[in-house]
Amino acid sequence: MKTHTTYFVMNTRKRQEIIDITDRLLDFLSEHPVEEGLMLVSAMHITASVFVNDHEAGLWQDIQDWLEGTIAPWDHHPAPQRQDDYLHNRTGEDNGAAHLRSLALGHEVILPITQGKLDLGPWQRVFYGEWDGQRPKRIVVKILGE
Amino acid sequence: MKTHTTYFVMNTRKRQEIIDITDRLLDFLSEHPVEEGLMLVSAMHITASVFVNDHEAGLWQDIQDWLEGTIAPWDHHPAPQRQDDYLHNRTGEDNGAAHLRSLALGHEVILPITQGKLDLGPWQRVFYGEWDGQRPKRIVVKILGE
Amino acid sequence: MKTHTTYFVMNTRKRQEIIDITDRLLDFLSEHPVEEGLMLVSAMHITASVFVNDHEAGLWQDIQDWLEGTIAPWDHHPAPQRQDDYLHNRTGEDNGAAHLRSLALGHEVILPITQGKLDLGPWQRVFYGEWDGQRPKRIVVKILGE
Repeated sequence: MKTHTTYFVMNTRKRQEIIDITDRLLDFLSEHPVEEGLMLVSAMHITASVFVNDHEAGLWQDIQDWLEGTIAPWDHHPAPQRQDDYLHNRTGEDNGAAHLRSLALGHEVILPITQGKLDLGPWQRVFYGEWDGQRPKRIVVKILGE
Repeated sequence: MKTHTTYFVMNTRKRQEIIDITDRLLDFLSEHPVEEGLMLVSAMHITASVFVNDHEAGLWQDIQDWLEGTIAPWDHHPAPQRQDDYLHNRTGEDNGAAHLRSLALGHEVILPITQGKLDLGPWQRVFYGEWDGQRPKRIVVKILGE
Repeated sequence: MKTHTTYFVMNTRKRQEIIDITDRLLDFLSEHPVEEGLMLVSAMHITASVFVNDHEAGLWQDIQDWLEGTIAPWDHHPAPQRQDDYLHNRTGEDNGAAHLRSLALGHEVILPITQGKLDLGPWQRVFYGEWDGQRPKRIVVKILGE
């Protein structure tokens, strides 16, 4: 079994941003080819996500609106059934919502490698979701296979 | 290390549907036995999910009601804290909600194989969640092990 | 390729509880060392989660408040866009919400092992989320690597 590991450093211009990393993953696989195996792609931070979806800018905005409006608003809302405050933010942080967003979307994906290629569906692309950026953060990428 | 890969084609009668695929996974493992390893089960589409939960029809309806009522309604709601529109749907699509449902539940699971068997808990079953079906869609299943 | 498997039995004092299991995972890896590989950590129950986030007690309470207030309330709420009842609870169960919480946060994570160590970011810790406890439940932990 072969293994190959690399790290991507992400430093987003905006505090929240969705970035397509598929081409970088394809490059890494072509530099370290395996015929059959798995590729783990995992954010090393607790306020970020890695996920698979569509390369479509409207959807990226939908995802951010959805996280803000439905899943985990950044600011405290006095609405019913919503906490007025994140306790985490009493530690001096302001990013409680970013932690919940990381949990909702997940922080890692595992991709199949078949006949030397990332075995993705025709529309599947891999994204880094930054929920508290503007500073260097890392993704670990590990190939296992033969 | 051995690897075995197959693809299931799903073509649901209803646009949204939850289907238990555990028996098909067990069959695939018995045809391609490994003693110790992992099985990746991953939807190859961005409007579908693969998840582990309970074989109970009431729960399947609860999951669909929850996705529609709480997580990502199919139609635009004028309620506060909810976007009036999915931008993705302005591309000519109408399935913005299906993308968000795929993200909320995830598109893949990785299952342990121990002593030649899928090492699931007593109630754990594996499901395909179709959020925009009535057309052929694929799941990739890959076994890695020895 | 080497594989090593163990099971943790969790029996929480409270019905819902978040428990840091990172040290137990590190111990298991140091007893069964591999240089390069993956570690799967997977709840064997359909009303529990395994996830990666921050060791901070305020955040753990935020997660529980969020699950109760926003994601999947335990009791039925008459609010708009929320089912008055979980159908699953008509089977004699009362834990429909715990199933949805397991789905929302996921039931497994896969962790990289690099140069003999769990390759986690500086703040990443691994948690068991019990959503219907006070009885023995299991987590399967499997190392694959070389």
